[in-house]
Amino acid sequence: MQLELFSVGTELLLGEIVDTNAAYLADKLSELGINVFYKTTVGDNIARLAAALDLSLARADAVLATGGLGPTEDDITAAAIAQVTGLPLEEDAASAEHIHNLARERGHKWLDSLLKQACIPRGAIAVPNPVGTAPGFILRTDSNTIIALPGPPAEMKPMFEGTVHPYLAGQVAGEGGAVLVSRILRFTGIGESQIEAELRDLISAQSNPTIAPLAKSAEVHLRIAARALTREEADRLIAPIEAEVRSRLGQHIYGADDQTLESVVGDLLRQAEKTLAVAESCTGGLIGHRLTNVPGSSDYLLASLVTYHDHVKTALLGVPADTIAAHGAVSAETARAMAEGARRLCAADIGLSVTGIAGPTGATPTKPVGLTYLGLAHPRGTLAEERRFGGDRLLVKERAAQMALFLLYRHLTGALEATP
Amino acid sequence: MQLELFSVGTELLLGEIVDTNAAYLADKLSELGINVFYKTTVGDNIARLAAALDLSLARADAVLATGGLGPTEDDITAAAIAQVTGLPLEEDAASAEHIHNLARERGHKWLDSLLKQACIPRGAIAVPNPVGTAPGFILRTDSNTIIALPGPPAEMKPMFEGTVHPYLAGQVAGEGGAVLVSRILRFTGIGESQIEAELRDLISAQSNPTIAPLAKSAEVHLRIAARALTREEADRLIAPIEAEVRSRLGQHIYGADDQTLESVVGDLLRQAEKTLAVAESCTGGLIGHRLTNVPGSSDYLLASLVTYHDHVKTALLGVPADTIAAHGAVSAETARAMAEGARRLCAADIGLSVTGIAGPTGATPTKPVGLTYLGLAHPRGTLAEERRFGGDRLLVKERAAQMALFLLYRHLTGALEATP
Repeated sequence: MQLELFSVGTELLLGEIVDTNAAYLADKLSELGINVFYKTTVGDNIARLAAALDLSLARADAVLATGGLGPTEDDITAAAIAQVTGLPLEEDAASAEHIHNLARERGHKWLDSLLKQACIPRGAIAVPNPVGTAPGFILRTDSNTIIALPGPPAEMKPMFEGTVHPYLAGQVAGEGGAVLVSRILRFTGIGESQIEAELRDLISAQSNPTIAPLAKSAEVHLRIAARALTREEADRLIAPIEAEVRSRLGQHIYGADDQTLESVVGDLLRQAEKTLAVAESCTGGLIGHRLTNVPGSSDYLLASLVTYHDHVKTALLGVPADTIAAHGAVSAETARAMAEGARRLCAADIGLSVTGIAGPTGATPTKPVGLTYLGLAHPRGTLAEERRFGGDRLLVKERAAQMALFLLYRHLTGALEATP
Repeated sequence: MQLELFSVGTELLLGEIVDTNAAYLADKLSELGINVFYKTTVGDNIARLAAALDLSLARADAVLATGGLGPTEDDITAAAIAQVTGLPLEEDAASAEHIHNLARERGHKWLDSLLKQACIPRGAIAVPNPVGTAPGFILRTDSNTIIALPGPPAEMKPMFEGTVHPYLAGQVAGEGGAVLVSRILRFTGIGESQIEAELRDLISAQSNPTIAPLAKSAEVHLRIAARALTREEADRLIAPIEAEVRSRLGQHIYGADDQTLESVVGDLLRQAEKTLAVAESCTGGLIGHRLTNVPGSSDYLLASLVTYHDHVKTALLGVPADTIAAHGAVSAETARAMAEGARRLCAADIGLSVTGIAGPTGATPTKPVGLTYLGLAHPRGTLAEERRFGGDRLLVKERAAQMALFLLYRHLTGALEATP
């Protein structure tokens, strides 16, 4: 199957937002073995969208458009699809009821214009929107499949996963197509170039599966992608490559596919029935934010105390003022005292801490921007690690949070020997 | 001038990377008053790229392509442009010398294939690459301007700024063209539909400036965009519209253009010489993370205490166990006690708190997912507000963090009367 992507919205052509939907969808479609040869971005202009859709429908089997399904005048995707297919827009009863209910639940003022969103082309299947008001739709014509979803990623993603992905998977299966299965291994504490150097022989020897590293801001992903007639066959192609990669670089791999470091660490804490208290400084709350993005994290996370000012480090966490005076707030000694303070204060099994210089200000001749100390306190002792991170303020925060969580991961998996 | 953007690269169509170049270029081009009606993403396939370029060159004045200029077999942008224009590729002497020099300086092994990058269409101007090896080029044909730049943003951006931007600015000036100036007003605590309802007469009466709302996950942006011969004239067109929008909805507007709520609140705290301590629960550290993304935030932020467990709320912040037992951890009473506790504990001028149910678990018959209480303690009293947010766990966290910062904003601007 060949599918073309459309992103609809003048804001995309004015550069006000980055189109993350396209990468998300392209990734999911390639996993389904669906070829995407073109992606087109068009503004909120019905004539230009209709002209581009006409062209795509002539050369591809399917189109998938995101954006332009909202209640306002400039939301024109459904109207453009109605125009190119010659099908009228009709109110979908279930979607209209959902819009009414949502407005009532949230106490929003009722506006008749909201119902515009419930109008979809005759014969289309509505795609329910669990997060917002606008439904999407899947329209099957004689020659094409036309899919429309809202633009906000928080709405689009669950709608794609819940309805569109199964629909397309069924269609691909019905056509007897091949599948492309990807396995993502997630690395921390090692760079993309080093991974590539360690795996060069594997990467150049393979054509199916293919092996490709991809650097993210604070970790590296390695994609092993196999094409085969069935998922099982693809899995069989991937397994020996994954085993070889793990035997060479396993100590840097914390998880696979959709696992995040915070979810992996959370599972380890839950299994070990251990509780955690965090003391943050330069990361500013990012570690707590990531840990609490995992549903059920209250099972093991007691607190994350962002002690930004030195006097709070002393007053709250009990970091001795002498320690800060002698070694500085950014030091192994302070990191240790912070981890111990958080652990004691919250009566937690484990205390984790970060203190560093996120920049652009705050550096000294001996302590450059990016210098960070990580601390870990547990029943058998306390340790600290020094790290130096590159990048701007946000990147230093992201990398420091990542390495702190990875320190905790190494402790929980027994990979780390505590220095008492 | 009408220009179409091309992003070239199979990795974009597989979703392996997010196309940030497009947003960057679209923003710069709109500032120059150049209309971008289409953006097309194509893989490393010469036939498909040539077909799409043909179409674009027929309907637009110019095309700008990024990607596909490297040394490998699958870098096909220059060849595709040669094909559609009928011009041969020829080695540019200065670019070839630059490639030789760079390989020598960096100690790279010499590969003849590197010189492929120096080949540009006959008659094109080379665009020097100060960062990497591949030059870009600007080709002026009888009817079109064709521009090609490398894909990596770190190379593309300085090349665009150094050579392409001045070239296009000159071309626009030569054609007596106009500039497009955008003003973004940032709203919180009001939905996109309601903004549109309140401004419907303005939106439909205007064609220059145009007015368009855009919903983000936790706020709404309103873009006022004016086209004029000079920046000053555009500003004069925007000013009365902005004033009218502010007179109707000013209480929901916290900032403009690139300002973030955390930077605006930070500036207000610094000006008032006030310090802040935050007590977070369901937001998990996101408020602290956002506040500390602003350089210099240690001037006013003392701490953000993520007291995730009830016993930490009591032990650390001094929230009475009776209060939690009688009203629950998610209650106005607990929010007040958390704000007061954070303020007292850190000796801050202002205490800000959030407690809510981020979901998907934790709801009760009387307390649904999304129910959140915000608290604010200051020298003259303490107040709490109840809010209900829709969306998944991360969206509830984002919306709760946003409304908490907006509560602080209203307090600091005097818009909020404290209820003692």
